[in-house]
Amino acid sequence: MWRYRTLLPIAGDTPVPPLNPGGTPLDPAPRLRSELVLPNLWLKDDTRNPSGSLKDRPSNLAVAKAIEAGFDTVATASSGNAAASLGAACASAGLRCVVFVPPYVRPGKLAQLQAYGAEVLIIEGRYEDAFDLCTAACEAFGWYNRNTGYNPYMVEGKKTVSLEIAEQLGWRSPDVVTVPVGDGCIISGVAKGFRDLHELGIIDREPRLFAVQAAGSDPFVRALEGEPPSDREPETIADGIAGSSPRNGVMALRDVRRSGGGGVRVTDDAMLEAEMLIGRTTGIFAEPSAAASVAGIRRLRELGLIGDGDEVVALLTGSGLKAVDVIAGWKGRPEPIPPSLDAVRARTGTIRPR
Amino acid sequence: MWRYRTLLPIAGDTPVPPLNPGGTPLDPAPRLRSELVLPNLWLKDDTRNPSGSLKDRPSNLAVAKAIEAGFDTVATASSGNAAASLGAACASAGLRCVVFVPPYVRPGKLAQLQAYGAEVLIIEGRYEDAFDLCTAACEAFGWYNRNTGYNPYMVEGKKTVSLEIAEQLGWRSPDVVTVPVGDGCIISGVAKGFRDLHELGIIDREPRLFAVQAAGSDPFVRALEGEPPSDREPETIADGIAGSSPRNGVMALRDVRRSGGGGVRVTDDAMLEAEMLIGRTTGIFAEPSAAASVAGIRRLRELGLIGDGDEVVALLTGSGLKAVDVIAGWKGRPEPIPPSLDAVRARTGTIRPR
Repeated sequence: MWRYRTLLPIAGDTPVPPLNPGGTPLDPAPRLRSELVLPNLWLKDDTRNPSGSLKDRPSNLAVAKAIEAGFDTVATASSGNAAASLGAACASAGLRCVVFVPPYVRPGKLAQLQAYGAEVLIIEGRYEDAFDLCTAACEAFGWYNRNTGYNPYMVEGKKTVSLEIAEQLGWRSPDVVTVPVGDGCIISGVAKGFRDLHELGIIDREPRLFAVQAAGSDPFVRALEGEPPSDREPETIADGIAGSSPRNGVMALRDVRRSGGGGVRVTDDAMLEAEMLIGRTTGIFAEPSAAASVAGIRRLRELGLIGDGDEVVALLTGSGLKAVDVIAGWKGRPEPIPPSLDAVRARTGTIRPR
Repeated sequence: MWRYRTLLPIAGDTPVPPLNPGGTPLDPAPRLRSELVLPNLWLKDDTRNPSGSLKDRPSNLAVAKAIEAGFDTVATASSGNAAASLGAACASAGLRCVVFVPPYVRPGKLAQLQAYGAEVLIIEGRYEDAFDLCTAACEAFGWYNRNTGYNPYMVEGKKTVSLEIAEQLGWRSPDVVTVPVGDGCIISGVAKGFRDLHELGIIDREPRLFAVQAAGSDPFVRALEGEPPSDREPETIADGIAGSSPRNGVMALRDVRRSGGGGVRVTDDAMLEAEMLIGRTTGIFAEPSAAASVAGIRRLRELGLIGDGDEVVALLTGSGLKAVDVIAGWKGRPEPIPPSLDAVRARTGTIRPR
């Protein structure tokens, strides 16, 4: 992502962490195009980042900004991916990392944090409690605060995904980008990237942005529909986009409306089915929160909000390897078979003779 | 890896799977260099491949060869990484995939296979039983056999990692490459890549190759020491390099001896410590079988087989996200704390006032 350094809010001589995020594939996914009957579909595969999620982009910028300002400790609240990416960036740069995670943090994300040597605080309560405590701790203890929706640079780090998409398309904007939304910070980053390029005259228009949320955790989509904020408990397997009060909601609402896009809800089953669909047609393993962007495309097609000829980019924000317990719980473990050809024949339904 | 297509045994017009492995970072790992006092160390980070392991290289070549020969089904035996990578490559190309795995297959690798839509057969017995059954099934049912040590193209796919290392060093050979060894196929691939470049006159020498095995599963190192084959049960957490009878042993023995290298054993604890060391100094999360290559460097330094000035490349063959249960079992889950600054202060040992 540092190839776009001149478009990032960082001094020319600030050292950046050696871990080099970005440069991820924009996959034409030919078999998924056929399956969805959407010939101009692309998958932006940010599962390929160093810690396995898009969050490596903002986290590496956060660590650079912390170095620039002379901090030795960086902290964040996170459901897991932001924390893991911060742990990786801090490890590569040699800064101390303290993360505040909710009790439902996935085992994969926790193990990553432990491997990176981050100090992991599991905070009783909801994500919002971890968020508020992290912000208070940064003020009390003099730590650099990376919190999404609090730290304005995070949108800047996330925008590099749009700079890449535009460059990979030959400095063009797609028609539509679908983005899984929790706090609304990624979708604002996506908007900012295309807006920067538009204002610079490098692209001639900006895409319609569609926010995809879990049906069981949809405060942002409700806000788009004009409903007043409530405080419903999230109920979804998609830990990366679960939350009751989007921390970057106001900015994201403005960005989505300005783009001419909107928002849709997808069920947990639709996300799991999209995860398996992506896997079996492309060989990319995305986590449920990431597969939401493809589940959202199906819903947007049903609603007539995406046309057959639209060029659509689905953002795959995190790796399925971070949430294998979801698949394990859903698909179960196959029964072992004895080492015999008859058992193989029976299990695979193979009838072809030699 | 397809940039090296002219050096691969594949016809000019054979379609290859769209999933594009290789092009992984050669990381200078500055903080790890300091820690190991090895200023010319590099990490070849093959955790960044599409399915999270080096095996994406041979598996994508296998699928291309299967397409070339008109097969519709590809099968392999594997402890997990080869299977997962084959599942991904088959999914991206639209071929059927049947994999034969041992009962100790890690949950992460199993979940990947399920997401890719592979048919997973868990075979009672050891890896060798799965291997023999897979080979028999391929003959009986007309499936393309990707088995390591059986399919000669797998060494060719794996060699692309050496072509990349040499190119990333400016078309030079390092002094030493350390390689985790199970079947011995990766280390033969590494040897073949440098040998090809040497014979073509592109590099002027080849590296010394050191095989690293688990102390509890060391048949290849014992063979290097001249011991006759035995049939000891593997005892190690490093599932990726566990085995009692290396399937590519004869070729690998020749390659390691010819290179002027050798072999070392590392304990499970040394691999776990290396995994945490890599994580906290670089932000790269490697699985224990992969971290063996860095644990091996420590051992080789103690034995005086690597000098201070040697340029050493450690091969990181697979992602730690595939084996998070190992870290979880080792480090445990931190006790949750209540959302209060006092609890944060107590847990982090922070005394700095505002």
